[in-house]
Amino acid sequence: MKYLIIYAHPNPKSFNAAIKEQVVSYLKSKGKEVVVRDLYQLGFNPTLSGNDFAQFLQGQIPLDIKKEQELIGEADTLIIIHPIWWFNLPAILKGYIDRVFSHGFAYKFADGEIKGLLTGKNVIIINTTGGPQENYENFGYKDALKLTICNGIFAFCGMSVKSHKFFYAVPTVSNDARTKMLEEIKALDF
Amino acid sequence: MKYLIIYAHPNPKSFNAAIKEQVVSYLKSKGKEVVVRDLYQLGFNPTLSGNDFAQFLQGQIPLDIKKEQELIGEADTLIIIHPIWWFNLPAILKGYIDRVFSHGFAYKFADGEIKGLLTGKNVIIINTTGGPQENYENFGYKDALKLTICNGIFAFCGMSVKSHKFFYAVPTVSNDARTKMLEEIKALDF
Repeated sequence: MKYLIIYAHPNPKSFNAAIKEQVVSYLKSKGKEVVVRDLYQLGFNPTLSGNDFAQFLQGQIPLDIKKEQELIGEADTLIIIHPIWWFNLPAILKGYIDRVFSHGFAYKFADGEIKGLLTGKNVIIINTTGGPQENYENFGYKDALKLTICNGIFAFCGMSVKSHKFFYAVPTVSNDARTKMLEEIKALDF
Repeated sequence: MKYLIIYAHPNPKSFNAAIKEQVVSYLKSKGKEVVVRDLYQLGFNPTLSGNDFAQFLQGQIPLDIKKEQELIGEADTLIIIHPIWWFNLPAILKGYIDRVFSHGFAYKFADGEIKGLLTGKNVIIINTTGGPQENYENFGYKDALKLTICNGIFAFCGMSVKSHKFFYAVPTVSNDARTKMLEEIKALDF
């Protein structure tokens, strides 16, 4: 089992960074193979451009996209770690999806239907929020995120989302609460 | 009434570009003042960075963000024009929100509550989709987009969303259908 962590947070001292470290050390303690793509550290370019489209039309893949597609191709499980910003992905991660999950790699149109091309791969999503749990659960935001991200991105491409974990109100809870959150990660079904 | 168009599509020959041109010419024919921010043409940097946060903490605003905030400040109505990519904003526009709609400009925390700071401004959103209308309406995607974008971004900041218009299945409909779509724009409540 090969794990690919796709991680997006600008601050290496953030709680998201602590989550990423916890996941890495837990998986390594179990003898698993783990690759981390730290999109901020990579300086990943999130802007799907006219030049990208021109290359796709010629059957070519821009080199930075090709590298990410190869790593996804080799992975059995993708672990997506990021904060929720404006009820969706940070732009650097949204652009990773826009550019890397391209037609012909992640999905294709065939016989008038969409066919996911990343079948057989699992996905685990771990998110932090600034707002409290009740805002997400009582006003439909959690359901909307599960629909647009789990279904609209990963299941759309044929992947199976095993877990979508939210850690709520991270900036305002106690250190003890955050420590317990990190412990909860070990209980995820990796 | 001053209008600020925030436009995100990489292809100047796209239907999104035609929508933008139609909005501009319609508003100008009515004698309105219109400013267009073409995020691709501007090469807008969508990645909210550690350096941005460091400047915010010192009470400073990065220059490219400050310029956009000034334009929003001067506008009565924002018109957001973009394709739906992966059931959300293209990354370049997501990053415009991540960076420009900053704490202290678009909203603030006060007395334990969030207060929108862009009250009195209207928003009109015009989207194109690749998928058909029934996919968006029957499976909850349209509702999820209205919740996460209209409520979660614009109303969150105190703005009033007057219209969220979807043009569906744009790549696969006839030229006549697209021409009718452009005519429909004149009926929007600007």
